[in-house]
Amino acid sequence: MTPTITAFESSPDRGQGLARDMRVRWALEEAGQPYEVRLVSFSAMKEPAHRAIHPFGQIPTYEEGDLALFESGAIVLHIAEHHAGLLPKDANARARAIAWMFAAVSTVEAPILDLQTAKFLEGDKPWSEQRLPLVKDRIRKRLGELSDRLGDADWLDGAFSAGDLMMVHALLRLKPSGMLDEYPSLAAYAARGEARPAFKRAFAAQLAVFTGQHPTG
Amino acid sequence: MTPTITAFESSPDRGQGLARDMRVRWALEEAGQPYEVRLVSFSAMKEPAHRAIHPFGQIPTYEEGDLALFESGAIVLHIAEHHAGLLPKDANARARAIAWMFAAVSTVEAPILDLQTAKFLEGDKPWSEQRLPLVKDRIRKRLGELSDRLGDADWLDGAFSAGDLMMVHALLRLKPSGMLDEYPSLAAYAARGEARPAFKRAFAAQLAVFTGQHPTG
Repeated sequence: MTPTITAFESSPDRGQGLARDMRVRWALEEAGQPYEVRLVSFSAMKEPAHRAIHPFGQIPTYEEGDLALFESGAIVLHIAEHHAGLLPKDANARARAIAWMFAAVSTVEAPILDLQTAKFLEGDKPWSEQRLPLVKDRIRKRLGELSDRLGDADWLDGAFSAGDLMMVHALLRLKPSGMLDEYPSLAAYAARGEARPAFKRAFAAQLAVFTGQHPTG
Repeated sequence: MTPTITAFESSPDRGQGLARDMRVRWALEEAGQPYEVRLVSFSAMKEPAHRAIHPFGQIPTYEEGDLALFESGAIVLHIAEHHAGLLPKDANARARAIAWMFAAVSTVEAPILDLQTAKFLEGDKPWSEQRLPLVKDRIRKRLGELSDRLGDADWLDGAFSAGDLMMVHALLRLKPSGMLDEYPSLAAYAARGEARPAFKRAFAAQLAVFTGQHPTG
Protein backbone atom coordinates (compact mmCIF):
# COMPACT_ATOMS: atom_id res chain seq x y z
CA MET A 1 0.00 0.00 0.00
CA THR A 2 1.41 3.39 -1.01
CA PRO A 3 1.65 5.75 1.96
CA THR A 4 0.62 9.40 1.73
CA ILE A 5 2.58 12.10 3.50
CA THR A 6 1.80 15.79 3.95
CA ALA A 7 4.07 18.73 3.18
CA PHE A 8 3.76 22.51 3.06
CA GLU A 9 1.84 23.82 0.05
CA SER A 10 3.88 26.99 0.40
CA SER A 11 7.14 26.44 2.25
CA PRO A 12 8.70 29.08 4.50
CA ASP A 13 12.13 28.10 3.09
CA ARG A 14 11.17 28.10 -0.61
CA GLY A 15 12.41 24.61 -1.27
CA GLN A 16 15.64 24.61 0.72
CA GLY A 17 14.54 21.29 2.18
CA LEU A 18 14.53 22.47 5.79
CA ALA A 19 10.94 21.46 6.57
CA ARG A 20 10.41 18.17 8.35
CA ASP A 21 8.71 16.42 5.42
CA MET A 22 12.25 16.19 4.00
CA ARG A 23 13.19 13.58 6.64
CA VAL A 24 10.25 11.42 5.79
CA ARG A 25 10.85 11.74 2.04
CA TRP A 26 14.53 10.87 2.60
CA ALA A 27 13.66 7.79 4.69
CA LEU A 28 11.15 6.62 2.09
CA GLU A 29 13.77 7.06 -0.65
CA GLU A 30 16.38 5.13 1.38
CA ALA A 31 13.78 2.40 1.80
CA GLY A 32 12.82 2.41 -1.87
CA GLN A 33 9.19 2.96 -0.93
CA PRO A 34 7.10 5.06 -3.36
CA TYR A 35 4.78 7.58 -1.73
CA GLU A 36 2.11 10.15 -2.44
CA VAL A 37 2.21 13.73 -1.21
CA ARG A 38 -0.74 15.83 -0.12
CA LEU A 39 0.13 19.51 0.11
CA VAL A 40 -1.54 21.52 2.86
CA SER A 41 -1.84 25.28 3.28
CA PHE A 42 -1.05 27.04 6.54
CA SER A 43 -4.73 27.62 7.17
CA ALA A 44 -5.75 24.03 6.33
CA MET A 45 -3.10 22.73 8.76
CA LYS A 46 -5.03 24.31 11.61
CA GLU A 47 -8.42 22.91 10.56
CA PRO A 48 -10.08 19.96 12.30
CA ALA A 49 -9.57 17.62 9.32
CA HIS A 50 -5.78 17.97 9.51
CA ARG A 51 -5.70 18.12 13.30
CA ALA A 52 -7.45 14.76 13.38
CA ILE A 53 -4.19 13.38 11.96
CA HIS A 54 -1.79 15.87 13.55
CA PRO A 55 -2.99 17.17 16.92
CA PHE A 56 -0.50 20.08 16.80
CA GLY A 57 -1.49 21.23 13.32
CA GLN A 58 1.88 20.64 11.65
CA ILE A 59 3.46 18.65 8.84
CA PRO A 60 4.53 15.97 8.08
CA THR A 61 1.92 13.29 8.62
CA TYR A 62 1.94 9.73 7.31
CA GLU A 63 -1.12 7.75 6.27
CA GLU A 64 -1.05 4.11 5.24
CA GLY A 65 -4.31 2.21 5.25
CA ASP A 66 -5.79 2.51 8.74
CA LEU A 67 -2.63 4.01 10.20
CA ALA A 68 -2.21 7.76 10.65
CA LEU A 69 1.00 9.01 12.23
CA PHE A 70 2.53 12.37 13.11
CA GLU A 71 5.99 13.40 14.42
CA SER A 72 8.81 13.01 11.92
CA GLY A 73 10.85 10.87 14.32
CA ALA A 74 8.02 8.41 14.81
CA ILE A 75 7.31 8.27 11.07
CA VAL A 76 10.96 7.65 10.18
CA LEU A 77 11.16 4.96 12.87
CA HIS A 78 8.02 3.32 11.48
CA ILE A 79 9.52 3.30 7.99
CA ALA A 80 12.83 2.00 9.34
CA GLU A 81 11.09 -0.85 11.16
CA HIS A 82 9.31 -1.98 8.00
CA HIS A 83 12.14 -1.71 5.47
CA ALA A 84 15.78 -2.76 5.39
CA GLY A 85 18.67 -0.32 5.47
CA LEU A 86 17.75 2.24 8.11
CA LEU A 87 18.29 0.32 11.35
CA PRO A 88 21.02 -2.21 12.22
CA LYS A 89 19.94 -5.82 12.67
CA ASP A 90 21.95 -6.25 15.87
CA ALA A 91 19.59 -5.47 18.77
CA ASN A 92 22.01 -3.29 20.73
CA ALA A 93 23.11 -1.33 17.67
CA ARG A 94 19.44 -0.84 16.78
CA ALA A 95 18.69 0.58 20.25
CA ARG A 96 21.65 2.96 19.94
CA ALA A 97 20.50 4.17 16.50
CA ILE A 98 17.10 4.96 18.03
CA ALA A 99 18.89 6.88 20.82
CA TRP A 100 20.45 9.09 18.13
CA MET A 101 16.98 9.66 16.64
CA PHE A 102 15.73 10.95 19.98
CA ALA A 103 18.94 12.96 20.47
CA ALA A 104 18.39 14.59 17.08
CA VAL A 105 14.87 15.85 17.79
CA SER A 106 15.27 16.77 21.45
CA THR A 107 18.87 17.46 22.47
CA VAL A 108 20.19 18.87 19.17
CA GLU A 109 17.19 20.24 17.28
CA ALA A 110 15.55 22.01 20.23
CA PRO A 111 18.30 24.65 20.63
CA ILE A 112 18.48 24.99 16.83
CA LEU A 113 14.75 25.78 16.73
CA ASP A 114 15.30 28.36 19.48
CA LEU A 115 17.45 30.24 16.99
CA GLN A 116 14.61 30.25 14.48
CA THR A 117 12.22 31.46 17.18
CA ALA A 118 14.69 34.19 18.18
CA LYS A 119 15.06 35.33 14.59
CA PHE A 120 11.54 35.01 13.23
CA LEU A 121 9.26 35.41 16.25
CA GLU A 122 11.41 37.72 18.37
CA GLY A 123 13.58 39.39 15.74
CA ASP A 124 11.73 42.70 16.20
CA LYS A 125 11.95 42.70 19.99
CA PRO A 126 14.23 45.15 21.80
CA TRP A 127 16.28 42.28 23.29
CA SER A 128 16.81 40.45 20.01
CA GLU A 129 20.38 41.54 19.23
CA GLN A 130 21.65 41.17 22.79
CA ARG A 131 20.05 37.76 23.29
CA LEU A 132 21.10 36.11 20.02
CA PRO A 133 24.68 35.29 21.19
CA LEU A 134 23.28 33.33 24.17
CA VAL A 135 21.02 31.30 21.90
CA LYS A 136 23.93 30.60 19.55
CA ASP A 137 26.22 29.58 22.40
CA ARG A 138 23.69 26.99 23.55
CA ILE A 139 23.73 25.54 20.03
CA ARG A 140 27.55 25.59 19.96
CA LYS A 141 27.66 23.61 23.19
CA ARG A 142 25.68 20.81 21.55
CA LEU A 143 27.58 21.01 18.27
CA GLY A 144 30.90 20.74 20.11
CA GLU A 145 29.72 17.67 21.99
CA LEU A 146 28.35 16.08 18.83
CA SER A 147 31.56 16.84 16.94
CA ASP A 148 33.62 15.27 19.77
CA ARG A 149 31.55 12.12 19.62
CA LEU A 150 31.61 11.84 15.84
CA GLY A 151 35.39 12.22 15.77
CA ASP A 152 36.65 11.21 12.34
CA ALA A 153 33.95 8.61 11.76
CA ASP A 154 31.64 8.82 8.77
CA TRP A 155 28.46 8.21 10.78
CA LEU A 156 27.53 8.36 14.46
CA ASP A 157 27.57 4.63 15.22
CA GLY A 158 28.80 2.28 12.50
CA ALA A 159 26.87 2.24 9.25
CA PHE A 160 24.45 5.03 8.18
CA SER A 161 21.17 4.69 10.09
CA ALA A 162 17.90 6.47 10.78
CA GLY A 163 19.82 8.14 13.63
CA ASP A 164 22.15 9.79 11.12
CA LEU A 165 19.23 10.68 8.86
CA MET A 166 17.47 12.54 11.66
CA MET A 167 20.68 14.16 12.94
CA VAL A 168 21.90 15.32 9.53
CA HIS A 169 18.55 16.94 8.83
CA ALA A 170 18.47 18.67 12.22
CA LEU A 171 21.96 20.05 11.48
CA LEU A 172 20.95 21.19 7.99
CA ARG A 173 18.44 23.54 9.60
CA LEU A 174 21.49 25.53 10.75
CA LYS A 175 22.71 26.08 7.21
CA PRO A 176 21.13 29.52 6.71
CA SER A 177 22.91 30.73 9.89
CA GLY A 178 26.37 29.66 8.72
CA MET A 179 26.98 28.11 12.15
CA LEU A 180 27.47 24.60 10.82
CA ASP A 181 30.66 25.71 9.08
CA GLU A 182 32.18 26.52 12.48
CA TYR A 183 32.40 22.73 12.98
CA PRO A 184 34.10 21.33 9.88
CA SER A 185 33.62 17.68 10.86
CA LEU A 186 29.87 18.26 11.31
CA ALA A 187 29.66 20.20 8.05
CA ALA A 188 31.37 17.24 6.34
CA TYR A 189 29.02 14.81 8.12
CA ALA A 190 25.97 16.75 6.90
CA ALA A 191 27.49 16.89 3.39
CA ARG A 192 27.88 13.09 3.42
CA GLY A 193 24.17 12.88 4.15
CA GLU A 194 23.32 15.29 1.35
CA ALA A 195 25.48 13.29 -1.07
CA ARG A 196 23.42 10.13 -0.65
CA PRO A 197 21.35 9.37 -3.74
CA ALA A 198 18.22 8.94 -1.60
CA PHE A 199 18.73 12.41 -0.11
CA LYS A 200 19.12 13.90 -3.58
CA ARG A 201 15.92 12.29 -4.84
CA ALA A 202 14.03 13.49 -1.75
CA PHE A 203 15.46 16.98 -2.11
CA ALA A 204 14.50 17.19 -5.76
CA ALA A 205 10.97 16.02 -4.96
CA GLN A 206 10.41 18.67 -2.27
CA LEU A 207 11.98 21.35 -4.49
CA ALA A 208 9.66 20.44 -7.36
CA VAL A 209 6.69 21.51 -5.22
CA PHE A 210 7.99 25.09 -5.41
CA THR A 211 9.43 25.19 -8.90
CA GLY A 212 6.50 23.29 -10.35
CA GLN A 213 8.94 21.05 -12.18
CA HIS A 214 8.97 17.32 -11.81
CA PRO A 215 12.45 16.23 -10.72
CA THR A 216 12.90 13.62 -13.43
CA GLY A 217 11.22 15.57 -16.23
CA MET B 1 20.48 -9.01 33.92
CA THR B 2 19.81 -6.03 36.19
CA PRO B 3 20.22 -2.73 34.33
CA THR B 4 21.99 0.26 35.87
CA ILE B 5 20.73 3.78 35.32
CA THR B 6 22.30 7.09 36.25
CA ALA B 7 20.69 9.94 38.18
CA PHE B 8 21.79 13.25 39.70
CA GLU B 9 23.81 12.89 42.90
CA SER B 10 22.51 16.29 43.86
CA SER B 11 19.28 17.20 42.09
CA PRO B 12 18.42 20.74 41.03
CA ASP B 13 14.82 20.08 42.12
CA ARG B 14 15.62 18.50 45.53
CA GLY B 15 13.61 15.36 44.87
CA GLN B 16 10.54 16.80 43.15
CA GLY B 17 10.96 14.11 40.50
CA LEU B 18 11.37 16.54 37.61
CA ALA B 19 14.70 15.15 36.34
CA ARG B 20 14.61 12.73 33.43
CA ASP B 21 15.76 9.69 35.42
CA MET B 22 12.20 9.72 36.80
CA ARG B 23 10.84 8.57 33.40
CA VAL B 24 13.20 5.65 33.26
CA ARG B 25 12.52 4.67 36.88
CA TRP B 26 8.78 4.88 36.18
CA ALA B 27 9.04 2.71 33.06
CA LEU B 28 11.13 0.12 34.92
CA GLU B 29 8.55 0.05 37.73
CA GLU B 30 5.68 -0.35 35.24
CA ALA B 31 7.66 -3.22 33.72
CA GLY B 32 8.43 -4.80 37.10
CA GLN B 33 12.14 -4.72 36.26
CA PRO B 34 14.52 -4.19 39.22
CA TYR B 35 17.41 -1.80 38.56
CA GLU B 36 20.52 -0.32 40.08
CA VAL B 37 21.25 3.40 40.27
CA ARG B 38 24.62 5.06 39.95
CA LEU B 39 24.57 8.67 41.14
CA VAL B 40 26.75 11.15 39.26
CA SER B 41 27.84 14.63 40.29
CA PHE B 42 27.59 17.62 37.97
CA SER B 43 31.34 17.59 37.45
CA ALA B 44 31.53 13.82 36.85
CA MET B 45 28.77 14.13 34.21
CA LYS B 46 31.12 16.22 32.09
CA GLU B 47 34.09 13.83 32.39
CA PRO B 48 35.15 11.47 29.59
CA ALA B 49 34.02 8.35 31.52
CA HIS B 50 30.41 9.55 31.61
CA ARG B 51 30.53 11.12 28.16
CA ALA B 52 31.52 7.73 26.77
CA ILE B 53 27.98 6.66 27.69
CA HIS B 54 26.23 10.01 27.26
CA PRO B 55 27.83 12.21 24.56
CA PHE B 56 26.00 15.31 25.87
CA GLY B 57 27.07 14.81 29.50
CA GLN B 58 23.59 14.40 30.95
CA ILE B 59 21.50 11.90 32.87
CA PRO B 60 19.86 9.41 32.59
CA THR B 61 21.86 6.64 30.99
CA TYR B 62 21.01 2.94 30.88
CA GLU B 63 23.54 0.10 30.96
CA GLU B 64 22.62 -3.54 30.55
CA GLY B 65 25.41 -5.97 29.71
CA ASP B 66 27.08 -4.71 26.54
CA LEU B 67 24.38 -2.12 25.87
CA ALA B 68 24.80 1.52 26.88
CA LEU B 69 21.99 3.94 26.02
CA PHE B 70 21.25 7.62 26.51
CA GLU B 71 18.14 9.79 25.83
CA SER B 72 15.21 9.09 28.13
CA GLY B 73 12.85 8.51 25.17
CA ALA B 74 15.12 5.84 23.69
CA ILE B 75 15.62 4.17 27.06
CA VAL B 76 11.90 4.07 27.82
CA LEU B 77 11.24 2.70 24.31
CA HIS B 78 13.89 0.01 24.84
CA ILE B 79 12.27 -0.99 28.15
CA ALA B 80 8.82 -0.94 26.54
CA GLU B 81 9.97 -3.20 23.72
CA HIS B 82 11.34 -5.80 26.15
CA HIS B 83 8.52 -5.89 28.71
CA ALA B 84 4.74 -6.10 28.56
CA GLY B 85 2.45 -3.24 29.51
CA LEU B 86 4.01 -0.13 27.97
CA LEU B 87 3.21 -0.56 24.27
CA PRO B 88 0.04 -1.91 22.64
CA LYS B 89 0.33 -5.25 20.84
CA ASP B 90 -1.57 -3.98 17.79
CA ALA B 91 1.02 -2.70 15.29
CA ASN B 92 -0.81 0.53 14.41
CA ALA B 93 -1.59 1.39 18.03
CA ARG B 94 2.06 0.70 18.87
CA ALA B 95 3.25 3.12 16.17
CA ARG B 96 0.85 5.79 17.48
CA ALA B 97 2.10 5.33 21.06
CA ILE B 98 5.65 5.90 19.79
CA ALA B 99 4.43 9.05 18.00
CA TRP B 100 3.27 10.37 21.39
CA MET B 101 6.70 9.59 22.84
CA PHE B 102 8.34 11.74 20.17
CA ALA B 103 5.67 14.42 20.61
CA ALA B 104 6.40 14.50 24.34
CA VAL B 105 10.15 15.15 24.00
CA SER B 106 10.10 17.42 20.97
CA THR B 107 6.79 19.21 20.45
CA VAL B 108 5.65 19.54 24.07
CA GLU B 109 8.78 19.41 26.23
CA ALA B 110 10.89 21.76 24.09
CA PRO B 111 8.80 24.89 24.83
CA ILE B 112 8.55 23.81 28.48
CA LEU B 113 12.33 23.68 28.70
CA ASP B 114 12.47 27.16 27.15
CA LEU B 115 10.65 28.38 30.25
CA GLN B 116 13.33 26.85 32.46
CA THR B 117 16.03 28.43 30.32
CA ALA B 118 14.24 31.79 30.50
CA LYS B 119 14.00 31.56 34.29
CA PHE B 120 17.30 30.01 35.28
CA LEU B 121 19.74 31.01 32.53
CA GLU B 122 18.22 34.36 31.53
CA GLY B 123 16.36 35.33 34.69
CA ASP B 124 18.88 38.08 35.43
CA LYS B 125 18.84 39.56 31.92
CA PRO B 126 17.22 42.94 31.28
CA TRP B 127 14.68 41.36 28.91
CA SER B 128 13.60 38.58 31.25
CA GLU B 129 10.34 40.04 32.55
CA GLN B 130 9.19 41.31 29.17
CA ARG B 131 10.01 38.09 27.35
CA LEU B 132 8.49 35.59 29.80
CA PRO B 133 4.87 36.05 28.58
CA LEU B 134 5.95 35.11 25.02
CA VAL B 135 7.62 31.93 26.26
CA LYS B 136 4.55 31.04 28.30
CA ASP B 137 2.19 31.69 25.37
CA ARG B 138 4.16 29.24 23.23
CA ILE B 139 3.66 26.62 25.94
CA ARG B 140 -0.06 27.46 26.19
CA LYS B 141 -0.46 26.90 22.46
CA ARG B 142 0.81 23.33 22.85
CA LEU B 143 -1.15 22.68 26.03
CA GLY B 144 -4.35 23.85 24.37
CA GLU B 145 -3.78 21.53 21.44
CA LEU B 146 -2.92 18.62 23.70
CA SER B 147 -5.96 19.28 25.86
CA ASP B 148 -8.18 19.38 22.76
CA ARG B 149 -6.85 16.02 21.61
CA LEU B 150 -7.14 14.37 25.03
CA GLY B 151 -10.77 15.49 25.41
CA ASP B 152 -12.35 13.56 28.25
CA ALA B 153 -10.30 10.42 27.70
CA ASP B 154 -8.10 9.01 30.46
CA TRP B 155 -5.06 8.52 28.21
CA LEU B 156 -3.96 9.85 24.82
CA ASP B 157 -4.77 6.77 22.73
CA GLY B 158 -6.58 3.90 24.41
CA ALA B 159 -4.83 2.23 27.33
CA PHE B 160 -1.94 3.81 29.24
CA SER B 161 1.28 3.53 27.22
CA ALA B 162 4.88 4.71 27.11
CA GLY B 163 3.50 7.70 25.17
CA ASP B 164 1.46 8.74 28.21
CA LEU B 165 4.40 8.07 30.51
CA MET B 166 6.64 10.43 28.54
CA MET B 167 3.92 13.05 28.10
CA VAL B 168 2.82 13.08 31.75
CA HIS B 169 6.41 13.55 32.86
CA ALA B 170 7.00 16.36 30.37
CA LEU B 171 3.86 18.08 31.72
CA LEU B 172 4.93 17.59 35.35
CA ARG B 173 7.95 19.77 34.64
CA LEU B 174 5.45 22.64 34.43
CA LYS B 175 4.22 22.09 37.98
CA PRO B 176 6.48 24.66 39.66
CA SER B 177 5.14 27.32 37.25
CA GLY B 178 1.47 26.68 38.07
CA MET B 179 0.70 26.67 34.34
CA LEU B 180 -0.56 23.10 34.27
CA ASP B 181 -3.53 24.15 36.43
CA GLU B 182 -4.71 26.47 33.64
CA TYR B 183 -5.70 23.28 31.77
CA PRO B 184 -7.80 21.23 34.21
CA SER B 185 -8.06 18.20 31.92
CA LEU B 186 -4.26 18.09 31.54
CA ALA B 187 -3.78 18.57 35.28
CA ALA B 188 -6.15 15.63 35.85
CA TYR B 189 -4.30 13.61 33.18
CA ALA B 190 -0.97 14.22 34.91
CA ALA B 191 -2.55 13.39 38.27
CA ARG B 192 -3.74 10.05 36.84
CA GLY B 193 -0.15 9.32 35.93
CA GLU B 194 1.09 10.27 39.38
CA ALA B 195 -1.57 8.04 40.96
CA ARG B 196 -0.21 4.90 39.31
CA PRO B 197 1.52 2.59 41.80
CA ALA B 198 4.57 2.35 39.52
CA PHE B 199 4.88 6.15 39.47
CA LYS B 200 4.66 6.27 43.25
CA ARG B 201 7.39 3.67 43.67
CA ALA B 202 9.63 5.50 41.18
CA PHE B 203 8.96 8.82 42.88
CA ALA B 204 9.79 7.43 46.32
CA ALA B 205 13.02 5.92 44.99
CA GLN B 206 14.25 9.19 43.48
CA LEU B 207 13.20 11.12 46.59
CA ALA B 208 15.13 8.73 48.83
CA VAL B 209 18.36 9.84 47.13
CA PHE B 210 17.84 13.27 48.68
CA THR B 211 16.30 12.37 52.02
CA GLY B 212 18.69 9.48 52.55
CA GLN B 213 15.73 7.29 53.51
CA HIS B 214 14.92 4.06 51.75
CA PRO B 215 11.34 4.27 50.48
CA THR B 216 10.16 1.01 52.01
CA GLY B 217 12.28 1.15 55.19
